[in-house]
Amino acid sequence: MTTPLTPRERMVAACRGMRVDRAPVWLMRQAGRYLPEYREIQSRTGFLERCRDPQLAAEISLQPHRRFGVDGVVVFSDILLPLCSAGIDLHFEPGPVMHNPIASEADVARLENGTAAAIDPTCEAIRRLRAELGSEAAVIGFAGAPWTLAAYALEERLSRDVVRLTSLSYRETAFVDRLLAAMTKLVIDTLVRQIQAGADVLQIFDTWAGNLDEPRFERFAGRALSAVLAGLPRERPPVILFARGAAHLIEPLARLGADVVSLDWRVNLSDAAQRIGQRVSLQGNLDPGALFGPPDEIRKQVHALIAQGRQARGHVVNLGHGVQVGTPVEGVAAFVSAARDPGV
Amino acid sequence: MTTPLTPRERMVAACRGMRVDRAPVWLMRQAGRYLPEYREIQSRTGFLERCRDPQLAAEISLQPHRRFGVDGVVVFSDILLPLCSAGIDLHFEPGPVMHNPIASEADVARLENGTAAAIDPTCEAIRRLRAELGSEAAVIGFAGAPWTLAAYALEERLSRDVVRLTSLSYRETAFVDRLLAAMTKLVIDTLVRQIQAGADVLQIFDTWAGNLDEPRFERFAGRALSAVLAGLPRERPPVILFARGAAHLIEPLARLGADVVSLDWRVNLSDAAQRIGQRVSLQGNLDPGALFGPPDEIRKQVHALIAQGRQARGHVVNLGHGVQVGTPVEGVAAFVSAARDPGV
Repeated sequence: MTTPLTPRERMVAACRGMRVDRAPVWLMRQAGRYLPEYREIQSRTGFLERCRDPQLAAEISLQPHRRFGVDGVVVFSDILLPLCSAGIDLHFEPGPVMHNPIASEADVARLENGTAAAIDPTCEAIRRLRAELGSEAAVIGFAGAPWTLAAYALEERLSRDVVRLTSLSYRETAFVDRLLAAMTKLVIDTLVRQIQAGADVLQIFDTWAGNLDEPRFERFAGRALSAVLAGLPRERPPVILFARGAAHLIEPLARLGADVVSLDWRVNLSDAAQRIGQRVSLQGNLDPGALFGPPDEIRKQVHALIAQGRQARGHVVNLGHGVQVGTPVEGVAAFVSAARDPGV
Repeated sequence: MTTPLTPRERMVAACRGMRVDRAPVWLMRQAGRYLPEYREIQSRTGFLERCRDPQLAAEISLQPHRRFGVDGVVVFSDILLPLCSAGIDLHFEPGPVMHNPIASEADVARLENGTAAAIDPTCEAIRRLRAELGSEAAVIGFAGAPWTLAAYALEERLSRDVVRLTSLSYRETAFVDRLLAAMTKLVIDTLVRQIQAGADVLQIFDTWAGNLDEPRFERFAGRALSAVLAGLPRERPPVILFARGAAHLIEPLARLGADVVSLDWRVNLSDAAQRIGQRVSLQGNLDPGALFGPPDEIRKQVHALIAQGRQARGHVVNLGHGVQVGTPVEGVAAFVSAARDPGV
């Protein structure tokens, strides 16, 4: 028997592949629209207002922890927020809209001169969470990946096929490289500010990297992710990488130097454990849709997932994507309680 | 050296895995919004109007063939059209909107009593195309898969996470099975009408099957696809299956009894040829974004693809998804001409 760890220790240790008493648990997008106490705040505030008020952001971040007792509390914010201090006029209507998408070299220059200062309210929320939580939970900060931020910054409202960034990557490679370099700098600044604020773990979301085949992932999104990881301090919190729809990219994702690869729900966790689970820890990966099912079924699926995760050097129990709007609160409760009591 | 085949023979033979002089070529969504002559028609007609006028639909289908000389002419229509004669009030605004999405058993009963008669103008367009084209090109009909039609029919505007169908599949399996059975009947009726009209090849689009992990694909979308294939006449045109984002599903897709599996651009064609290419022919799979690149690059990529495709029992040159809005006409021209002149 191992000595019980604090939730904060458990989360960090599992990410680093160290021995733990049980796999830690949290949920992507756990602070959000499925909780009545969030919807109450939502009804009287705008999305960016909630991100920019450290008190509100910390409160929203704590809501799921109070209900479920997760091992990781992810700060309430948005991957696009740093763009606001780098020359992009971002709004949520309710989806993200760029009123001045990047169209020229001059626009990229403006981005290069920007900083991630817009993330400072998130950093202040991280400080408050750290002070409030102590060892009771790890505080998780996050950023969008360069490829994904570039995808959004190039279109007023991002098309499902990510047409602007994709077509430019075939036609104007030098422009795309310059844009990705600027985004890389912005992402590093975002993460360094969160490290300084006390984040225990960092997650990078590459929402649109899954659109790339493997050679183009390595050439564009993967190269930029490597540069982000190389640009962080040597002594840093563990970093989790998540790419949506990236079943075909798990090997290249595991080679980038991150501590954890977060798996889409369509990947078989045992299979991923055999392929990459000795090099990195794994996070995931229940189908977010499963939380709409009966609590007993959810518990069975979580226990099956935990058994599979034991084949990896470390496992963080999570969904394979964010919690969906309309998810029953009792589904989330069953998920967390099954992970906290994994049985034998 | 093999005797040159007519384009129509070439297309059918490649699908069935018979010897051909060269791999045939067509493009998913080849009739559409990247062509100025289409946009001219678009400017004075509504989308459903174009689908419902056999003369217009045939004309639009022929436009890319006149420019590029493809081996397969896909009929202009929409996978959702058959829903209109099965009780669904469908509009395009411009994306698909169901004014009365399926919400109850009574709604499913209404669907069960419907037919695919709404596809009859498409069938009339197929007859005209057959008469016009002779052996000059194969005429390709198509239908949506049961899982994908169910996804759309359950939501006013389909959410990116396909929340209604996904959550019901975890919570109300019997209801989903009944809905999929009704859709299966509708899809069979759609395809049989197109066969009777003279379609040489049929493609089934399972746009949303890629959201399922392998066990759930087999349980829901795959089971329904098998039932569709089993419900078609024994002597039938070759059937191509396409599922978007289904790199993790190519083995189960190849086991369903279709003649061709159409690959997403994220799958490596050589790898797929080794894994499933003796059981089925393969279609695909250039990244649609590549058509925005320089014509010389496109030609190189098409020739590389054709070399990879030779490892399969048959290969139909195509994109890995539909042609995107804004694609340069010269990109499509380079794609088709490279496939028609594959070199040594």
